[in-house]
Amino acid sequence: MPKAKIAIVMGSQSDLETMSEAVNLLKEFNADYEVRILSAHRTPDKVAKFAKDARKDGVKVIIAGAGGAAALAGSIAAHTTLPVIGVPMETSSLKGLDSLLSTVQMPGGVPVASMAIGRPGAKNSAIFALEILGVSDKEIEKKLNNYKKELVKKVTEIKLKV
Amino acid sequence: MPKAKIAIVMGSQSDLETMSEAVNLLKEFNADYEVRILSAHRTPDKVAKFAKDARKDGVKVIIAGAGGAAALAGSIAAHTTLPVIGVPMETSSLKGLDSLLSTVQMPGGVPVASMAIGRPGAKNSAIFALEILGVSDKEIEKKLNNYKKELVKKVTEIKLKV
Amino acid sequence: MPKAKIAIVMGSQSDLETMSEAVNLLKEFNADYEVRILSAHRTPDKVAKFAKDARKDGVKVIIAGAGGAAALAGSIAAHTTLPVIGVPMETSSLKGLDSLLSTVQMPGGVPVASMAIGRPGAKNSAIFALEILGVSDKEIEKKLNNYKKELVKKVTEIKLKV
Amino acid sequence: MPKAKIAIVMGSQSDLETMSEAVNLLKEFNADYEVRILSAHRTPDKVAKFAKDARKDGVKVIIAGAGGAAALAGSIAAHTTLPVIGVPMETSSLKGLDSLLSTVQMPGGVPVASMAIGRPGAKNSAIFALEILGVSDKEIEKKLNNYKKELVKKVTEIKLKV
Amino acid sequence: MPKAKIAIVMGSQSDLETMSEAVNLLKEFNADYEVRILSAHRTPDKVAKFAKDARKDGVKVIIAGAGGAAALAGSIAAHTTLPVIGVPMETSSLKGLDSLLSTVQMPGGVPVASMAIGRPGAKNSAIFALEILGVSDKEIEKKLNNYKKELVKKVTEIKLKV
Amino acid sequence: MPKAKIAIVMGSQSDLETMSEAVNLLKEFNADYEVRILSAHRTPDKVAKFAKDARKDGVKVIIAGAGGAAALAGSIAAHTTLPVIGVPMETSSLKGLDSLLSTVQMPGGVPVASMAIGRPGAKNSAIFALEILGVSDKEIEKKLNNYKKELVKKVTEIKLKV
Amino acid sequence: MPKAKIAIVMGSQSDLETMSEAVNLLKEFNADYEVRILSAHRTPDKVAKFAKDARKDGVKVIIAGAGGAAALAGSIAAHTTLPVIGVPMETSSLKGLDSLLSTVQMPGGVPVASMAIGRPGAKNSAIFALEILGVSDKEIEKKLNNYKKELVKKVTEIKLKV
Amino acid sequence: MPKAKIAIVMGSQSDLETMSEAVNLLKEFNADYEVRILSAHRTPDKVAKFAKDARKDGVKVIIAGAGGAAALAGSIAAHTTLPVIGVPMETSSLKGLDSLLSTVQMPGGVPVASMAIGRPGAKNSAIFALEILGVSDKEIEKKLNNYKKELVKKVTEIKLKV
Repeated sequence: MPKAKIAIVMGSQSDLETMSEAVNLLKEFNADYEVRILSAHRTPDKVAKFAKDARKDGVKVIIAGAGGAAALAGSIAAHTTLPVIGVPMETSSLKGLDSLLSTVQMPGGVPVASMAIGRPGAKNSAIFALEILGVSDKEIEKKLNNYKKELVKKVTEIKLKV
Repeated sequence: MPKAKIAIVMGSQSDLETMSEAVNLLKEFNADYEVRILSAHRTPDKVAKFAKDARKDGVKVIIAGAGGAAALAGSIAAHTTLPVIGVPMETSSLKGLDSLLSTVQMPGGVPVASMAIGRPGAKNSAIFALEILGVSDKEIEKKLNNYKKELVKKVTEIKLKV
Repeated sequence: MPKAKIAIVMGSQSDLETMSEAVNLLKEFNADYEVRILSAHRTPDKVAKFAKDARKDGVKVIIAGAGGAAALAGSIAAHTTLPVIGVPMETSSLKGLDSLLSTVQMPGGVPVASMAIGRPGAKNSAIFALEILGVSDKEIEKKLNNYKKELVKKVTEIKLKV
Repeated sequence: MPKAKIAIVMGSQSDLETMSEAVNLLKEFNADYEVRILSAHRTPDKVAKFAKDARKDGVKVIIAGAGGAAALAGSIAAHTTLPVIGVPMETSSLKGLDSLLSTVQMPGGVPVASMAIGRPGAKNSAIFALEILGVSDKEIEKKLNNYKKELVKKVTEIKLKV
Repeated sequence: MPKAKIAIVMGSQSDLETMSEAVNLLKEFNADYEVRILSAHRTPDKVAKFAKDARKDGVKVIIAGAGGAAALAGSIAAHTTLPVIGVPMETSSLKGLDSLLSTVQMPGGVPVASMAIGRPGAKNSAIFALEILGVSDKEIEKKLNNYKKELVKKVTEIKLKV
Repeated sequence: MPKAKIAIVMGSQSDLETMSEAVNLLKEFNADYEVRILSAHRTPDKVAKFAKDARKDGVKVIIAGAGGAAALAGSIAAHTTLPVIGVPMETSSLKGLDSLLSTVQMPGGVPVASMAIGRPGAKNSAIFALEILGVSDKEIEKKLNNYKKELVKKVTEIKLKV
Repeated sequence: MPKAKIAIVMGSQSDLETMSEAVNLLKEFNADYEVRILSAHRTPDKVAKFAKDARKDGVKVIIAGAGGAAALAGSIAAHTTLPVIGVPMETSSLKGLDSLLSTVQMPGGVPVASMAIGRPGAKNSAIFALEILGVSDKEIEKKLNNYKKELVKKVTEIKLKV
Repeated sequence: MPKAKIAIVMGSQSDLETMSEAVNLLKEFNADYEVRILSAHRTPDKVAKFAKDARKDGVKVIIAGAGGAAALAGSIAAHTTLPVIGVPMETSSLKGLDSLLSTVQMPGGVPVASMAIGRPGAKNSAIFALEILGVSDKEIEKKLNNYKKELVKKVTEIKLKV
């Protein structure tokens, strides 16, 4: 089964509220993506199979969102040389500090690219995935440049009421 | 190949200095143990195979020491219903806070029992493994009770020079 | 008075909301358990008596939930060689970081097995207690394996709406 | 056996290097003090007995130094209505943050007075103990006032070389 | 003007909600206390005058509640050799970690006795103040012992519904 | 002037000791890279010019190492849609927590991919840069797969002396 | 275009709720100020131009509020020798610890003056800006002294209901 | 006695090693400065007198370095409307996090401008003091602009050996 170029996975259904920031941005860009639930701790074999097959299935970049002892992005990175982007979920007790450190503090040899905690990180994971594809895809590069110009324009047009 | 009852695994050779606290205590108790290097991020398939086979190989308790984004204990717990004890390594930058949170903040459904950061945690992982075996092994129970009495005695015999 | 195999204790009535995760899981497993309030700081003598008598009363594993300067699990571990599992409560000010460090940073010689902060930790304390019993109890082992399969199934059956 | 008015206890012999700051200050004040090793986790019965008997043995204030999951001061406070002063030891991994939170975050009803982490805290525990005695002892009050004047004088006399 | 034996001061009116825990406990004990607003940063001269005069005005113990860069307890301790108890307020951003560290990390020579963050700390500041007075006041000692017995009784009488 | 495909920049000469981990790995892969000092706070115009020109100069991926209020990676990401990888330096006071949060907590719209603090992060930044290039470069993909196999082999060959 | 003496800039419209504390205080002082949105990460060229031109446009002090990887104050300080005051926004996940460290931990050579996290910091940024102008402006000095007297008066007039 | 325009004060002699970064920079600028030891907790009356008299003594800016429960900068700011710059010392246990939070988390109404922890902060305190004076002093402004150009030049001239 051919897969989409950008695969978004997340550890639990409750992560979808945050990860929808990534989904929505990819929709906006009309990107080729797919979304699924995969848990490093509850469905480890599916994670391993997904990660091992990803490249030959046509996946180019993987986005993994998880919280707490967030092992998902690292577990995927353990099985592939595709770029893996981690999104640390905001958590109830430690507010995502646990998710961030579990995601970013990877040992030398097996990188995970961590984004910010929570919604800004989810949104940026999608942009970063597109930036990776944009290295060799002129159309995506062009869309990203337009997106960046829009950012400037939006900030510039704000009328402050003070 | 039959395995020992207590399996100590660690993510990297550099963890041995800390984990030797566990090894030495098990030696002292004349316990049935084995030690190996297994990395959640570098040898994930070996971790999965080890964890899946552990119970039928005769393992009763697993001790896993790892540092940073310490996924080892959780990766093993994902594949077995044997009790898994995690030992968070002290790290250079965040002093083991990263290892601790990555080890202890497991999602509901897949427990890891975390010990303290570093050497005291390594030592206690061995004692805790013996306590688990001691639930149904009278001889180990007896040795543990003697060990506890020795703790009292050692503290009591200290002559403070003040 | 014969006691249940799994004893759940907690430092305050307000901990019950969290600890009910443990209770409910043990109910689901039809396990032999009992629940009581014991405070390391308010009823220390009862804690000591409970802990000293636990093994001869038939207790096999102890789960202790407490918050803040969470001394309960450690105080119990000081008096017994039964395995003691600590559950750090989420707290108002420091969000459970205080409870976690007070529970997990035990000195060498007296282990406490710490679970995650709050509800996931409470749930996992029950599973871990069962895993300990499952080392020598085939029926519990079987139930745990089924529970694990259910986890996989539940994750697999989620239909994401994206 | 009649006891000294100020009792210094500590969880381990290795705490003496830090706690000697308290001992030395009490020596300097020619105070009535005694020092002993008592461990909340290794010698809990001795801790309980010490704390229960302290007032009738003539103790007026208790200083307790401990590190990591520092339960000593709280365990003593659980058994007495004498003022208990806690000194959190600096630790290798978390630099005393664990000791501080375990000492200071006591539940309502059972106070422990926490000093700073490490040597300044040890020194201040002795001064604070004297301040408590000085509430009803004119001689100690006078010595404390002189000590305070000396602090001013010492700071004032410093010649900076810049 | 003669003052009460226990002086409660706080840095801002908004601290009263928390500090009322101390006030209520002292009411319950029928203790001799007074309450006032004094700010280390907004009314420093009043703080200095209050602290310098406290002992000769009849004050025996001072309780100071403050939040953020909580300098109040330390500023008072700078001017008196009476025992000063600090209560760190829970804050919006850093949840009281700032208040705690500003209160407890005093330099050697000038002790402040820190209680827990927020309401439990406020309550305990009152108990600790009474414990200090109880060192030389048999009636307060007796009341404290009764209070402690009540704590045990209350915990013992809880009927858990599980 | 044509630039290399992978540009490594760092905020200060003192970062080179850490960033040499990235340089050495790229050397080992015989990759097309260049290294320079650029400071977000001291040479902001050079940073802006570098970042704006990078794509048309042939750069494909940018690695930026900085410490403390580590603005370098974000300042570059502000000016380009190329993927920017941030490496937080370990710092003297806060051990890299400041660098990590300054690097990773980017606002939605402008992603930076953060690696771990210090040397492991520096090494992984190089691997991750190669993974990005490997999305569309078969030769790099092949080298990465060999590198991954070597990781497994190295771990497997360790003979533990216990 | 001549600019106001005090320029308030902020990274996002959502920061205005917090920064209105600064605006309101400057209004109260009838100060010469202006407010604008400038984002270090979304409109870096406007930030650079604003900062480079500020002094010749008549600006004397700059207040910059930003959250998360808060690079705004530092990015401005990189381009000017005018005093730059940073206000770290309170954030959802890490409660402003990220904003604070990103603002305050500037490298030697390029200072930013950090205020407290959130609203108190915003208010103080305005007062501090006025203090800077008050160094050479007698009228502002006089207003600040009156403001300080009012602070004392307000605290003094509080009637506590206890 | 007329005072220098820039007053550097520090809480203890041991702070001089760090604060010499400020002294040396002011020497380099040939600035009008003076240095003294003043402790908020040991010599509070001297702090108050210094702060109250500072403006009429000709002081324009105050730099205050202190560690731990670092109340010095805030205690000075409580008595003056001159700009006060705080430098948090790096501490043994909490690495300056305590000093930073005690310095920066000032309540609304009484600002302190915090610099980075330790040596970079000390250096920057001197530059920031000069920036304040440079608002109305053309010569200092000119020197600061030259200093900034030198920063660029120094970075630009580095030859990396890689």
